[in-house]
Amino acid sequence: MSRPESARGTSDPSRDVASAKGGAHFSSGPGGFRCTVESYFDVKTVDQARDILLKAWKVKPLDIEEVHITAAAGRVLARDILACEDVPPFARSTVDGYAVMAKDTFGATEALPAILEIVEDIRMGAMPEKNLLSGQAARIPTGGSLPCGADACVMIEHTDLLDDRTVLVKKPVAPGENVIHKGEDVTSGETLLLTGRVLRAFEIGALAALGHVTVPVFRRPRVAILSTGDEIVPPDKSPGPGQIRDINTYSLAASALSCGAIPITLGISSDTYEDVRQPLEEALDTADLLVVSGGSSVGTRDVVVQVISDLGPPGVLVHGVALKPGKPAILGICRDKPVFGLPGHPVSALTVFSLFVKPAVVRLYEKSSASTAHNTRQGSETAFDLHFDFLSREKTVMARLSRNISSAPGREDHIRVRLRLENGEFWADPVLGKSGLISTLVKSHGEVVIPLEYEGLKAGSLVEVRLT
Amino acid sequence: MSRPESARGTSDPSRDVASAKGGAHFSSGPGGFRCTVESYFDVKTVDQARDILLKAWKVKPLDIEEVHITAAAGRVLARDILACEDVPPFARSTVDGYAVMAKDTFGATEALPAILEIVEDIRMGAMPEKNLLSGQAARIPTGGSLPCGADACVMIEHTDLLDDRTVLVKKPVAPGENVIHKGEDVTSGETLLLTGRVLRAFEIGALAALGHVTVPVFRRPRVAILSTGDEIVPPDKSPGPGQIRDINTYSLAASALSCGAIPITLGISSDTYEDVRQPLEEALDTADLLVVSGGSSVGTRDVVVQVISDLGPPGVLVHGVALKPGKPAILGICRDKPVFGLPGHPVSALTVFSLFVKPAVVRLYEKSSASTAHNTRQGSETAFDLHFDFLSREKTVMARLSRNISSAPGREDHIRVRLRLENGEFWADPVLGKSGLISTLVKSHGEVVIPLEYEGLKAGSLVEVRLT
Repeated sequence: MSRPESARGTSDPSRDVASAKGGAHFSSGPGGFRCTVESYFDVKTVDQARDILLKAWKVKPLDIEEVHITAAAGRVLARDILACEDVPPFARSTVDGYAVMAKDTFGATEALPAILEIVEDIRMGAMPEKNLLSGQAARIPTGGSLPCGADACVMIEHTDLLDDRTVLVKKPVAPGENVIHKGEDVTSGETLLLTGRVLRAFEIGALAALGHVTVPVFRRPRVAILSTGDEIVPPDKSPGPGQIRDINTYSLAASALSCGAIPITLGISSDTYEDVRQPLEEALDTADLLVVSGGSSVGTRDVVVQVISDLGPPGVLVHGVALKPGKPAILGICRDKPVFGLPGHPVSALTVFSLFVKPAVVRLYEKSSASTAHNTRQGSETAFDLHFDFLSREKTVMARLSRNISSAPGREDHIRVRLRLENGEFWADPVLGKSGLISTLVKSHGEVVIPLEYEGLKAGSLVEVRLT
Repeated sequence: MSRPESARGTSDPSRDVASAKGGAHFSSGPGGFRCTVESYFDVKTVDQARDILLKAWKVKPLDIEEVHITAAAGRVLARDILACEDVPPFARSTVDGYAVMAKDTFGATEALPAILEIVEDIRMGAMPEKNLLSGQAARIPTGGSLPCGADACVMIEHTDLLDDRTVLVKKPVAPGENVIHKGEDVTSGETLLLTGRVLRAFEIGALAALGHVTVPVFRRPRVAILSTGDEIVPPDKSPGPGQIRDINTYSLAASALSCGAIPITLGISSDTYEDVRQPLEEALDTADLLVVSGGSSVGTRDVVVQVISDLGPPGVLVHGVALKPGKPAILGICRDKPVFGLPGHPVSALTVFSLFVKPAVVRLYEKSSASTAHNTRQGSETAFDLHFDFLSREKTVMARLSRNISSAPGREDHIRVRLRLENGEFWADPVLGKSGLISTLVKSHGEVVIPLEYEGLKAGSLVEVRLT
């Protein structure tokens, strides 16, 4: 993507102030203001912009690390897990009752029960001592090991004791009934879990069952976060005249954590080229993705564009997205790492993060999985695709819109809403307010997206609210 | 809730084997088996059981701890957050343009623009140096501080420069237009966040804006987890004959983490009364909730019932729930702490955990919030109710069922399903298999709940799949 010469050189104080039709903008350099045409402000839809970034990105797969099973929840599996043994390792009863030969019970009824000799009390955690012969039964608890010769279990409820050594079976069982066979759950050699699986409680349980106390997972992607702006001070400082506290470092770090990444906070830089470039250049060595939340003025955006271009190639890929809030978003790639220029407004910054940075984190996991799995996988199962979808899927609820919302066609609008429950139904009240207000954020429970092609939504419409 | 004498005294070897209509069961003591009537097996619905537990529980509020803002995401706010200053601390422009007196622009048009003298270039992070007089304008970037005298900002797009000192304004602005007033976002003294709020990226941002570098949050509830069963060995040990590895400690610990609690793993105990009682009794000193995953046999359940009863009062409140899988669930309270007896089957254990333990964790946060908020809150806002709902809400997707599922009326059935995407629509394939199989867990994406009053669901029905 090319930028005209006029957008460059914000550090060149000799350039004259210029004004042009089609939207002039100006930048605040050390000495004052400068207007440049914004014809390079070549606005893309959200989907186009994301596609451009993800297609241009040559993903370097994440390294693999071993973590203890108690720290593995939520991590992404980095190798296929094969079973080295049968689960269960022996045939087990699924009921409290009697292990029997099924054929001994055929035809048994309440009136004409099968009469079996009790030859053993099988204990949990021990193997049966005797082989079962025809006409015999062994008491067995749920989970107990079936004796040799037995092929089914009778539930205690379908028996009566005649005496201590004799049981009456009042209902027949089929061979295999109430039994989990050796290897029925998992057969030795079987692939139980595929690379790329997000480890939930279930997978953790399966890993424990197979004796995996440490688990190979992908290193978490590192997201470097820089706040820029001459007016920004750290939150523990009292803002002086004209200053405000840094919000985005903290809200974006929390967002990074929530999508399986580790935030690396780079602090605050001024709006000058060198102050923005230096921390980003250093972060390129250690981070997997870089996020700069700009000052809100065009001047700062120009600096960020310039730095991303110079740190490339390819540098800036997208500048401007048909999105509200978040139009001035910048997407680029430097040294095979995605770099995101986010608006300074906290609401806009978070919207752009969730639409572009989060999918990039998911893509990094996906590509890492695909590259690792390639050598070991035979089959065509791609369970992980779906699981990644879930990783990135937000919780949603359906609600009725309480008032009309208008939207400019050709732009994707994200409207913050507050939910209330009325007669068992959710109603979504749009939270109005200028986009820089943090109070609109904390009052809202989520957002409603008005797609590109819509001019708005009517009061009473059923809408999907993405809880955020 | 009373239990007949016959359910007690599993350690009494003199008790005779007994059998009774209505479902006999037997217990495996050190010496062998014993049958007892199960009339105390007074089965409740899931909702009844949860109500009984939560109503009987005298919740002791969680302590409050201070955490750094970078570690506060996902935690629960333990004090109301009042603003000690205005946000923003000064009137700011929301556009790149010119600060003006609105009245100077009234009537301005493209053909007949207002002509204003540019008296200052306002810099980010600094206060304007001059007071604005009628007929004057000051260049201002987005976020810049409004000069005294100005009451609106004109967007750069609606201006032309005549010369370096003179701007033509081609469109009128109303007073307050393109300005965020001092304190418009948050007014000093206002309560911004209420106790009980779950801290998302937004709240983290709001806390940073107000200068809160540390945040008062509730201590995470501690969930003690004990696996019982003579046949259970740790996952790093090779199971001997008749033995299997401990699954539940690890899958339940992962579940505890996912609902905002800290797991305390107590290890594995044998099925004997003393071995179960001792670790639970010790854990009552430190844990907030206790979970015992039983061996699957009735014998172990009897021991767990006995221990919970003896550690009370009130001890066991519910034994048996109209639920599949998970019928043998035990709910009790000992020394004001909920104690849960979970079935040994991994699938059943996780189902019971999510239906009873997780809501108890949420209740603990809710009650802690209510007790803390009581003294400081005047209003009736209870935003936290909804937020807690979200804390405990699972992600769901709608899907079509690919085959009929039958269910016994009077029982809530949880059916594990695997999702597939076909022509843009999710289909849910029931994952069949005995309830002890871990392979059914890892193959599934979630579960479909068939309520009490249903006899099943037809193929093609639209069902809500709870992703787990």
